[in-house]
Amino acid sequence: MGKINLKEKLDKFSDHWSPKVIAEMNDYQFKLVKIKGDFVWHNHTDTDEVFIVLEGSMKIEFENETIELDEGEMYVVRKGVEHKPYAENECKVMLVEPRGVVNTGDIKGNLTASNDVWV
Amino acid sequence: MGKINLKEKLDKFSDHWSPKVIAEMNDYQFKLVKIKGDFVWHNHTDTDEVFIVLEGSMKIEFENETIELDEGEMYVVRKGVEHKPYAENECKVMLVEPRGVVNTGDIKGNLTASNDVWV
Repeated sequence: MGKINLKEKLDKFSDHWSPKVIAEMNDYQFKLVKIKGDFVWHNHTDTDEVFIVLEGSMKIEFENETIELDEGEMYVVRKGVEHKPYAENECKVMLVEPRGVVNTGDIKGNLTASNDVWV
Repeated sequence: MGKINLKEKLDKFSDHWSPKVIAEMNDYQFKLVKIKGDFVWHNHTDTDEVFIVLEGSMKIEFENETIELDEGEMYVVRKGVEHKPYAENECKVMLVEPRGVVNTGDIKGNLTASNDVWV
């Protein structure tokens, strides 16, 4: 695999809440996702999950607080912690997590995306 | 741990070739490093290593090719692959790799940095 240009990869899809894999490191994956509007409350029982904002801004709601992430900011959601991502306007995000993580955790629904889709 | 602003973290150190940990996800670490000039040939026998260029540009020499990475580009160096990072001008990079990885691999020398230094 050669080098990966994040902007070129982002230009290749336009759907929201559907992470695309761009790279693997050991058994972890780097994914790009465009988000807009409300996601669902969920958690990942087995793993932490990293959000890195590449463009725009987003919020992550927790039970007792809401954090706002702007471009160039990152956050580690700890395993098992209930959270709900949200973006008023489209926000472009890189996710880092183990291969096999489903975007909605154990909550399957309309926003559950196909896993392991590469772009 | 709260949100992490990459630029604020980068402003907190100025030395070269000395990665600083800014976050942990499971048993992996996200590190920032400023590089300038030549590094040493080395490899990491047990793990892949991710380079993400945040500002500037750098090169990674391999035995049979050299790749150039500009801002917004990333590369996964596969485990066991000999490589030598290089930057003509200062370049700011995020590394992602398992906790415990030493920057020079098995080659200890002047450029071997203290491990697990947080910023």
